[in-house]
Amino acid sequence: MLRLHGFAVSNYFNMVKLALLEKGIPFEINTVRGNQSPEFLAISPRGKVPCLETEQGFINETNVILEYIEETQGGKPLLPSDPYERARVRALTKEIELYIELPARTCYPEVFFGGKVDPAIREKAREELLAGVAALRRHGSFAPYVAGSEMTIADLMFLYSIDLARAVGKKLFGVDLLGDWPEAKALLDLLAQNPHVQRIEADKKAEMAAFIAAMGDKARG
Amino acid sequence: MLRLHGFAVSNYFNMVKLALLEKGIPFEINTVRGNQSPEFLAISPRGKVPCLETEQGFINETNVILEYIEETQGGKPLLPSDPYERARVRALTKEIELYIELPARTCYPEVFFGGKVDPAIREKAREELLAGVAALRRHGSFAPYVAGSEMTIADLMFLYSIDLARAVGKKLFGVDLLGDWPEAKALLDLLAQNPHVQRIEADKKAEMAAFIAAMGDKARG
Repeated sequence: MLRLHGFAVSNYFNMVKLALLEKGIPFEINTVRGNQSPEFLAISPRGKVPCLETEQGFINETNVILEYIEETQGGKPLLPSDPYERARVRALTKEIELYIELPARTCYPEVFFGGKVDPAIREKAREELLAGVAALRRHGSFAPYVAGSEMTIADLMFLYSIDLARAVGKKLFGVDLLGDWPEAKALLDLLAQNPHVQRIEADKKAEMAAFIAAMGDKARG
Repeated sequence: MLRLHGFAVSNYFNMVKLALLEKGIPFEINTVRGNQSPEFLAISPRGKVPCLETEQGFINETNVILEYIEETQGGKPLLPSDPYERARVRALTKEIELYIELPARTCYPEVFFGGKVDPAIREKAREELLAGVAALRRHGSFAPYVAGSEMTIADLMFLYSIDLARAVGKKLFGVDLLGDWPEAKALLDLLAQNPHVQRIEADKKAEMAAFIAAMGDKARG
């Protein structure tokens, strides 16, 4: 059986978890936080979660895990079969990761964990984040899903990136990234009705207090 | 015919160009630099190169373009057929991009274009770059190629990322990222003998002076 390593507060972990739940694929969870121990680096070269354990070995990087699941497991498809449409979904997924999640991530220590982020890093994040949201508004369909009428991996990336990015925008930059973007809000409302999304949210809440405490210790040194 | 938009100094453009040349696929080039004009944003939502023009439309993001070419065009495969091995190559490719190329990129304005990078951003890049190289040494095979005995998309990402990252390491951090890593040097030597790599290098040299001048104007404001 597939075994997913990670923890319920990790947004990337939750993308993979939602894919597995949506597809109805049985899997086990090994709860572990990303770390730089030799044992963990042996299964995840950069020490990050999630990491998927298969019969052949371990697979890293969320979008790579999602592609592997798509190629080897049955269930509801999360990528279109037409190569051009598939490329479009992959590009949207990558754009959300690179131009929204990653810039927002540089500010998480200050926004979520009581730490401080250098002003130069904050300003770079602000510029990139605004440009990234503009790019997604340009490229996405939101009809109602990010890439069109069907749920795809781009929705998993969107769902578990935009909430954190929005918190960063509000707290550090005084901007609501969804303020004049009703299509994005409507998609979040739609996804919030999904029972698998609700289950992941409940699991996250249950783990949140312990995680914030641990990260706060780290962010404050 | 496929049409590749970008320019000969762009490392990501050169990854796609090398894939097309290695596969023997005919293509045209439209020389254009990344920019934020409405015309260019209409074909590349974040204003970046490369961008691949197909009969169905435009495709963005280098690894997405590489997957599309792999799926729709013939020629030498650059991804293994086994799903687990394919996942490993994709993960290596992503790790090089996220943990080596992108941190190094934050320092390009100072290293290549006569600008200045804030010390906080430089220090963050240093930490990430060293961790990224350590991750690749852990995960890669270099036997002789990054993922094993065959050239894959991971080699394209490696070839056109490690040289720039190495220049950043040397100039800003006084570190040779390949200093005690003979396998990586051997792979670069091997790839340097490839006639398509040589052609791309010659094209790059021909465009370099004009590009440095333009970017220098930008970096110095």
